[in-house]
Amino acid sequence: MTYCVGMLLDQGLVFLSDSRTNAGVDHINTFRKMTVWEKPGERVLVLLTAGNLAVSQAVVNLLGERVADDDGHCSLVNAPNLFEAATCVGEAVREVHRRDAAALKEFGVDFNTTLILGGQIAGEVPRLFSIYAAGNFIEASRDTPYFQIGESKYGKPILDRVINPATSLDEGAKCALISMDSTIRSNLSVGLPLDLLYYRRDEFRVARHVSIGSDDAYFAMIRKRWGAELRRVFQDLPNPDWQTATD
Amino acid sequence: MTYCVGMLLDQGLVFLSDSRTNAGVDHINTFRKMTVWEKPGERVLVLLTAGNLAVSQAVVNLLGERVADDDGHCSLVNAPNLFEAATCVGEAVREVHRRDAAALKEFGVDFNTTLILGGQIAGEVPRLFSIYAAGNFIEASRDTPYFQIGESKYGKPILDRVINPATSLDEGAKCALISMDSTIRSNLSVGLPLDLLYYRRDEFRVARHVSIGSDDAYFAMIRKRWGAELRRVFQDLPNPDWQTATD
Repeated sequence: MTYCVGMLLDQGLVFLSDSRTNAGVDHINTFRKMTVWEKPGERVLVLLTAGNLAVSQAVVNLLGERVADDDGHCSLVNAPNLFEAATCVGEAVREVHRRDAAALKEFGVDFNTTLILGGQIAGEVPRLFSIYAAGNFIEASRDTPYFQIGESKYGKPILDRVINPATSLDEGAKCALISMDSTIRSNLSVGLPLDLLYYRRDEFRVARHVSIGSDDAYFAMIRKRWGAELRRVFQDLPNPDWQTATD
Repeated sequence: MTYCVGMLLDQGLVFLSDSRTNAGVDHINTFRKMTVWEKPGERVLVLLTAGNLAVSQAVVNLLGERVADDDGHCSLVNAPNLFEAATCVGEAVREVHRRDAAALKEFGVDFNTTLILGGQIAGEVPRLFSIYAAGNFIEASRDTPYFQIGESKYGKPILDRVINPATSLDEGAKCALISMDSTIRSNLSVGLPLDLLYYRRDEFRVARHVSIGSDDAYFAMIRKRWGAELRRVFQDLPNPDWQTATD
C-alpha cells in the first residue's frame, strides 16, 4: 500500500508520500510516489500516486512523454491552468485504462489508481485536486483543505483535528509527518523513506524537497515525542468514575 | 457502519460499541450492537457485532433461541468454555449464511458480519475472540490484547500506542472512548449512544454497563480535553527546520 497526503494552505502547499509498495508482505519494494514538474517562475506541479504500481507508473510515464510531443495532447508543462492539468492527468489515467484494464481483469487484478495533483501556474492561486481511477476529479476548498490517498484512515484523525487553511507550511509538514507516523505504526505496508515537499505560494519554484529516511533526526524526534506526549496526556486525563460507583 | 472494540487486560475485559447503523447517509438508525449473557457466579459472555444488521440480528436471535432448546445445539449458557462458546457463535453465523447468503447475493448484497466474543466461564481465565463471516475465529493473546470490528482504522493508532495487558480497566475504557471519539469525528456513520461494559476478572458478573449519550459529562470531557491537549502537544512540538535552510 501507500500513504500520501497533500494540503492546500494559505501559505502554499505541502505534500508527503511514503515509498513502500508491496504485493504480499514477502514482496516489499521502495518506489517513489511523488513526481514534480517545475518551470521556475512559471509553474510547479506535484503529482502523488497510489494504487497499482504498474498503472501509476504508466500514467506518470505517459504524462512525461507528453511534455515533449506536440500532437495536440494536453501536457502538464503547457496546461494553461491547474484544472486543465488535472484533466490531462485524468486523460492519461483513461488511456492506461483502455490499454491495460482488460488484461488486468483476466488476471483478477482491479484497475485501481488514485492521484493527488497540486501546484500553481502563473495567473492562478495554488490549487489541489484528487483524481480517481475513472479519470474524474474533485478540487480541495477551504472547507476541505487536504486530500489523502492510499491507506488513509489511520492518519486522518490528527489531520481533522489540526489542519485548516491558516495552518502554516511548517505546521502542515509537522502534522503530515505525525499522520504518517500513525499510519506506519498501524500498517506494515507503509514505510520509509518519505518524500516531503513544500511549495510557498507565488514563488513558482519548489521551496524544499526533503527525503526522510530512518536516520532523519527531525522525524525520529517527532515519532518519539509525539508518542510519549500522547501517552502522557492520556495518563493525565481523569479516569472514568463509573467503575467506582456500585451497581 | 459500526465501530466496536474489545480488550483483554490483566484486570479483566472492556467492551465498547457504538449504535449507529446505516444504509446510505439518509437512512441512519440506532441499534444496539452489544449483547450480554450472564449467569452470576458462573459466567459472563459479551457479544459485539458489526456488518450487515439483518445478518447480525439473525445470529444474535439464533443464539438466544438456543439458550432455551435442548436439541443438541451448543448454546452460550451451556458451553463449557469460551472456545466452545466461540464455536457456537461461528455455527450460528454459518447457519444464517446457509439460510440468507444466496438471497442476499441475488440483490448484490455481500454476506458480511464480524463479531467479537469475550467473557469468562468458571474454571477458565477471561478470554476474547474475533469471529469472521466464515464462522472461523481467532483468540486474543498478550501480544494482541484487543480486537476491533467495523470502521476500525481511525481509532487504531491510539490503541496501538497505549493498550497492553497491564493497562487497568479504567484506562482501557478511557482509551476505548478516545479511540471511539477519533472514529466518530472522521466517519459520519459511527455515532452515539455508546455501550460501555467492564468485566472484572473472576467476578462472574458484569461490573458496570453504561450507556453513553451526548449528555454524558465524562465522554464530553474526554472529547473536549483530548482534542485540546492534542492540539497543544502539536503546537509544542518543534517545527521542522528544513524550510529555513536555503536550497
